[in-house]
Amino acid sequence: MSMAGLLEPDVALEQVLAAVPTATSVNVPAGDCLGLVLAADATACADLPPFDRAMMDGYAVRLADAGATVELLGEIAAGDGAYQKPLPAGHAYPIMTGAPLPPGAEAVVPHEQTQRQGDHVDLPERIRPGANIVPRGGECPAGRSWAKAGAVVTPMTLAAALGVGAKHLEVHPRPRVVVIATGRELAADPRIAGQIRDTNGPMLAALFQEVGASVQRQVVGDDAEALCAVLQSLGDVEVVVLTGGVSAGTHDEVPGVLRRLGAEILFHKVAQRPGKPLLVARLGRQLLFGLPGNPLAAHLCACRYVAPALRRLAGRTSVPTRGRGALQAALPANTERTWFLPALVEQGAVLPLLPLSSADLVQPHQANAYLRLDPGSTAMAAGAEIDYTRIGVDAWAR
Amino acid sequence: MSMAGLLEPDVALEQVLAAVPTATSVNVPAGDCLGLVLAADATACADLPPFDRAMMDGYAVRLADAGATVELLGEIAAGDGAYQKPLPAGHAYPIMTGAPLPPGAEAVVPHEQTQRQGDHVDLPERIRPGANIVPRGGECPAGRSWAKAGAVVTPMTLAAALGVGAKHLEVHPRPRVVVIATGRELAADPRIAGQIRDTNGPMLAALFQEVGASVQRQVVGDDAEALCAVLQSLGDVEVVVLTGGVSAGTHDEVPGVLRRLGAEILFHKVAQRPGKPLLVARLGRQLLFGLPGNPLAAHLCACRYVAPALRRLAGRTSVPTRGRGALQAALPANTERTWFLPALVEQGAVLPLLPLSSADLVQPHQANAYLRLDPGSTAMAAGAEIDYTRIGVDAWAR
Repeated sequence: MSMAGLLEPDVALEQVLAAVPTATSVNVPAGDCLGLVLAADATACADLPPFDRAMMDGYAVRLADAGATVELLGEIAAGDGAYQKPLPAGHAYPIMTGAPLPPGAEAVVPHEQTQRQGDHVDLPERIRPGANIVPRGGECPAGRSWAKAGAVVTPMTLAAALGVGAKHLEVHPRPRVVVIATGRELAADPRIAGQIRDTNGPMLAALFQEVGASVQRQVVGDDAEALCAVLQSLGDVEVVVLTGGVSAGTHDEVPGVLRRLGAEILFHKVAQRPGKPLLVARLGRQLLFGLPGNPLAAHLCACRYVAPALRRLAGRTSVPTRGRGALQAALPANTERTWFLPALVEQGAVLPLLPLSSADLVQPHQANAYLRLDPGSTAMAAGAEIDYTRIGVDAWAR
Repeated sequence: MSMAGLLEPDVALEQVLAAVPTATSVNVPAGDCLGLVLAADATACADLPPFDRAMMDGYAVRLADAGATVELLGEIAAGDGAYQKPLPAGHAYPIMTGAPLPPGAEAVVPHEQTQRQGDHVDLPERIRPGANIVPRGGECPAGRSWAKAGAVVTPMTLAAALGVGAKHLEVHPRPRVVVIATGRELAADPRIAGQIRDTNGPMLAALFQEVGASVQRQVVGDDAEALCAVLQSLGDVEVVVLTGGVSAGTHDEVPGVLRRLGAEILFHKVAQRPGKPLLVARLGRQLLFGLPGNPLAAHLCACRYVAPALRRLAGRTSVPTRGRGALQAALPANTERTWFLPALVEQGAVLPLLPLSSADLVQPHQANAYLRLDPGSTAMAAGAEIDYTRIGVDAWAR
């Protein structure tokens, strides 16, 4: 605990990650698994390759014909069923890369090791058994584990899955998130006096989509009854992200509503700016975040607390990318709470994007990193080296 | 040109990037623009904030009442239309963060600077004009440019767009790619003798989706007529990626078909392994890639040549992330062509994922980086430092 009894930001993050529900497991068509994480080892359903395969263009030969002049038969190309006709002694098939070997063939001899004379070819004295052949099942035999639990499904994983005949993969499902913007000021029609557009909802939805979550959005007024009803209707959604209504104001209904529903409040208020009012709670398997309504605070809390929780829920263990660069503008000292500042990092240059107010998203909208100024940190001059943490799609190292 | 007259890989990449068609521009609903790049400066359609807004909870007051005890009127919360009633002299409105200021109010005084006595409050002696108020248009007035051409649309950009009333954004459209797998061996039913599943098509489609392209897939046999017909039917797709049929084999129809259609061949064959047969051509505005059918070669060429072209076409200028780490296994010397090897980089440890054959995707499917061994490079021991280039979703720094 820091001054004023607020939770330190790093302790808060630890508590969030410890509260993430255990990742579940589901069987999904391989084509829908890009970016998901395998929940179990994957086993080959078929031999890869499915037949003895030529690794290069050349001649399919018998070892006994090494050093001999053999008669050429018709070419075998990739896709040919010709390999079902066996290779007689004293003969060779011209064969193309990727084509199936005929029964009896024991090696592929590349063109440059031979001398062709019309429909005959002179073979070299020494031919290694199996040369330039990938035997059936040589990359992976049926029944063998070809990918481990915890592996991220890459484009190459999809191809390998098709190769070994795996139509479905056992993966951790895409986390489901419901984003609920609260506040009487969030109008469908912003021309009504005092009303504004909901900007936090679309921002948070986009942010969680980038992290790989499946996101739904709702807007609810400050009305405690309506919020209760919405929260009770969500079913088995794993993560709920509320924005607005978590401060101590008279219209801040979120803490009370969560208590009324029987949620366990993990913490409320963190020694940071922006984002001091952050509230995190648990209700059964569901993890609930109460983010401040202040857009920059909502953004910081989403990047720093919600996104890592979603990554963990998807079975990913990685941390955001950190780096160090040269400040392009001076920064003031920071006395109190840990201060997180949006910044644009380009080729080692770190430009702080100071908002005009705590609600301002216009100045910092190009931010791709956050800077962190701990309490008691002194002023920094332009040119000084500073650490940053990446945000957004490019932020995550595997 | 290197030995054997092949193009050097870096020259090949330069030629590809120089041939990328100029990025076009299109007006898209803001909500569909996440990750796209602005093609023009964006101008605010409305003042942000749309009214003078309280930055914190406190009292809305007149400057003339500084040092006086004033009578409290009803509270103004965010979303209230109450501000249309003016603030009379000798009075103050309790006001909540985000709420609109009433006409006549000149500052917001926070609670802790006041002394409340029932329905009256003592104001401080000094009140700064405009204190704790963001004036209407203070973050961005209507008509001002709020985002520059070249900016990537982030989640925060979406929120800012909503805030300034921008329903549409002028962006570079998502690049359209058609992936065409060629080869007689690519069967709908792999149980037919000698036939295999198309693995390159799904792999490449996933890879280009990760880069942000809109991808369609086709499978065509080795038949030159059929391939011609498909290529002629594509309309104004910007990028065509063929896989297979680019070597010198008798069934390799791609170079001939492209010439027949009048395409300008930019280059054919690069001094690299895998991926030596790479062919790049241009037909009007269309950029065509002929990738080898060898899956690893197709993957390397897609990561190294096609993905950067797609990024440029989308208006992005960035390069893949590079890094340096400790080899977890020895690597042999490389004599001839530049050798690109898949590797798994985890926390500074670089594990080469050597394939069993040039077609093998099972061993390297977890690769998140490529290593590069230039011609003439000597053997490296485990523990040696080596440079890598990231691949996949996490590869691109802004």
